[in-house]
Amino acid sequence: MIRQPENKSRRILITNRGEIASRIAKACRELGHTAIGIWTDNEVHATHLQFCDEWVHLKGSTNAETYLNIDNLVKVIKENNVDAVHPGYGFLSENADFAKRMESEGIVFIGPNVECIKVMGDKATSKQLANQVGVPTVPGTDKAVESVEEAVEISAKIGYPVLLKAVAGGGGRGMRACANEEEVRANFEAVGRESLAAFNNGDLLVEKLIVNPRHIEVQILADKKGNVYHFFERECSIQRRHQKIIEEAPSPFIGDDEELRQNVCETAVKLAKAVNYDSAGTVEFIMGEDKSFYFLEMNTRIQVEHPITEEITGIDLIVCMIQSALGDDLGFPGQEFIKRSGHAIECRICAEDPITMLPAPGLVTGFETNFPQGIRFDHCLYKGLNVTPDFDPMVGKLVAKGIIRDVAVRKMKAALNGLFIEGLKTNKPLLKVIMDNQNFIDGKYSTDFIKVENPNDLVNTDLNHMRFYKMLAAVEARRMGM
Amino acid sequence: MIRQPENKSRRILITNRGEIASRIAKACRELGHTAIGIWTDNEVHATHLQFCDEWVHLKGSTNAETYLNIDNLVKVIKENNVDAVHPGYGFLSENADFAKRMESEGIVFIGPNVECIKVMGDKATSKQLANQVGVPTVPGTDKAVESVEEAVEISAKIGYPVLLKAVAGGGGRGMRACANEEEVRANFEAVGRESLAAFNNGDLLVEKLIVNPRHIEVQILADKKGNVYHFFERECSIQRRHQKIIEEAPSPFIGDDEELRQNVCETAVKLAKAVNYDSAGTVEFIMGEDKSFYFLEMNTRIQVEHPITEEITGIDLIVCMIQSALGDDLGFPGQEFIKRSGHAIECRICAEDPITMLPAPGLVTGFETNFPQGIRFDHCLYKGLNVTPDFDPMVGKLVAKGIIRDVAVRKMKAALNGLFIEGLKTNKPLLKVIMDNQNFIDGKYSTDFIKVENPNDLVNTDLNHMRFYKMLAAVEARRMGM
Repeated sequence: MIRQPENKSRRILITNRGEIASRIAKACRELGHTAIGIWTDNEVHATHLQFCDEWVHLKGSTNAETYLNIDNLVKVIKENNVDAVHPGYGFLSENADFAKRMESEGIVFIGPNVECIKVMGDKATSKQLANQVGVPTVPGTDKAVESVEEAVEISAKIGYPVLLKAVAGGGGRGMRACANEEEVRANFEAVGRESLAAFNNGDLLVEKLIVNPRHIEVQILADKKGNVYHFFERECSIQRRHQKIIEEAPSPFIGDDEELRQNVCETAVKLAKAVNYDSAGTVEFIMGEDKSFYFLEMNTRIQVEHPITEEITGIDLIVCMIQSALGDDLGFPGQEFIKRSGHAIECRICAEDPITMLPAPGLVTGFETNFPQGIRFDHCLYKGLNVTPDFDPMVGKLVAKGIIRDVAVRKMKAALNGLFIEGLKTNKPLLKVIMDNQNFIDGKYSTDFIKVENPNDLVNTDLNHMRFYKMLAAVEARRMGM
Repeated sequence: MIRQPENKSRRILITNRGEIASRIAKACRELGHTAIGIWTDNEVHATHLQFCDEWVHLKGSTNAETYLNIDNLVKVIKENNVDAVHPGYGFLSENADFAKRMESEGIVFIGPNVECIKVMGDKATSKQLANQVGVPTVPGTDKAVESVEEAVEISAKIGYPVLLKAVAGGGGRGMRACANEEEVRANFEAVGRESLAAFNNGDLLVEKLIVNPRHIEVQILADKKGNVYHFFERECSIQRRHQKIIEEAPSPFIGDDEELRQNVCETAVKLAKAVNYDSAGTVEFIMGEDKSFYFLEMNTRIQVEHPITEEITGIDLIVCMIQSALGDDLGFPGQEFIKRSGHAIECRICAEDPITMLPAPGLVTGFETNFPQGIRFDHCLYKGLNVTPDFDPMVGKLVAKGIIRDVAVRKMKAALNGLFIEGLKTNKPLLKVIMDNQNFIDGKYSTDFIKVENPNDLVNTDLNHMRFYKMLAAVEARRMGM
């Protein structure tokens, strides 16, 4: 029989806030460790504190002075006899200096070794490593092309369609798709001019254009003994402003293609092994409609969307991540121990204007839930919460699990209907519309599902009933007295 | 792809209260039906009402006048245009007259057909049916033996050890185990005399003694089209006063014996098919240490402990039960669709004295939870709840799920530590002791795990650290100011 180790009790500082701090505190307590939470001014009522055993107040009015202040955190660590630190996501979670400082102070950093953070934290070195071990990256140039002839030559080599892309671009701007040589020649100068005007830099890259791209990522968990496991894939193609808002596991695009699934997952494991990965992490890929896939980046931390993987595998990733960092045995007899069943969907509940999709800070004047069975809600909401612009606008993660995707969608719809956040603008109306969208229901979508080039130009999205959405948003706004 | 049916919205009356009424209301809402709750005097703040869409007050001061009053419920049904009735467990859930009345009124009874309730509701007819279709029942006499010679003859036939048992006995009294003919002869008259004295009836039965018996039951779900599925087994051997308090799925006793598991589950399906079963139900068996098993009874309703099966199969049984009753397709391609993974444990939280294990009504003056990830708590608790002697003392079902049993136990221990019910005596201290008991941890137990022949004589139990338990109970009592 597999047995879980009896842990020696440690003192763990959680250098984070919000739902992930609560999540980590729960795991600490379950393992018999002491969860130490931190809080800043105006956070005395924060929900994460109630899950902690001890609390430390951080002075300062900016994140740089508090959650990101390494020197001060080291002081807190020493004053509180801390044995280990869990950084959560964001803040210092992927900061190699912080991880290195912990190492030199003799504190366990609950995350991967410093080298992993360094190599994977840099787009260039991570892609180099991927290419070295035969993990495909999106074909294209590493540096600016010097002429239209070079662009044409490279395009021919990587195959059409290609993307002409400003070196300095971002957020979907400064790029043009080209289906053939003629279009490269026709667009090269124009894109360069536009980029110069927009970013004060006219340099261009050429990259293979992935048509109807899907964001597929693989959850990795490794211990300090060289064992690397994958926990199958998640699909996070529903994004707005290049940020995920809905994630699913398994991927509806990979569907029943077990060979493809295995290929993607084993590719992720290969890369993780190549970097001697030794914690929870995620390898992200972009997948084309032809099912070819390319490495994008690796997140060397626990991710926001980890709950959907926990739901389909039944394994508590945060608990395992802590066990791994403390050198405890994970107790997995092998990869085949990790099985998946059912389907899980996560909706990120964000304090943002449901029309413009831009952050909308505000005060929560009421909060109630009425969920069906099978719903998990990791959140930091309470009546009286003041959502400020200082932090990420995500206030909760609504997770629905069903035996099949249809059931998960139905439960998510019911859950959204049973989520009452008053006083605060949230993206709930948008999420509801997506759950009712036939393309979403059929699993037919790409990262372009919500295209918002211009926030006022929502008709550009392929949501097929924007009028209904606008109506809904208006109703919601009226109900909330906005 | 399997698709869930789009349901026509119906009006469903839930003729129950407490956590199961909430559970059913959630399922109704998820399916788009209207959940109509009922309440009696002093129940205006009951938690189940907040999950319902409509509410009906029942006049009367006893259960006979309210929850059990069929004529009045029919009146409510007519006045509220009810399409279907869900009875939950207890109350009218296994009342064939109520089911028949629903049938004659043209109301869908969310449960099996009347014939199933009748046949399975009677110990004699259900055992007859079992024997007819080759499902074993505990070997023994149906009626009183007339002499010691007959007792010896029957004992030889069914094999030793046997139990001499008072026809009128119950609750563990008026019975004696006999290992051989000599002991039957030695005890026959004495047990008869004792029974006459205790129950005013000296008649005795002879039954095969099941040594270290385990309570194993199989969850069944069937539709109105003749499809019968099993959802694997639960083990409910941890009982006090012949009532379950801790249930697990899968059974630690069956463990990895997949052949035995399949045999038990298929036996249950055979019996369910024999009675034309067409809803959610449970076939209960007693299993000896030699792994022989015998049919005890079938519960023709949803059971208290259904959540652990939902947790390991990922299937929402209440939703499926409603779909089945309404004639909708369950969408199961076959038995192989129903898989299990992980391990789930349920602890029944009861308002009872932790030492005597007898009901202890009272007022809840505080209620807070601080649970690890992976905990489900189906309950009816709130600050201000007055637990009265009129209803079952169970106030909640704490369910922990883990990838392996060890993890589920660890999560349950953390959850019990994070469950704060103030003002009310509960069995929490007992549950905590059991979770720490090495025999329980090793899965080595039987229905005799807690033997409380005399409520003041708790040292008779095989809990191996009763002193710790008593200490714990005292600490808890002091904390609660009792």
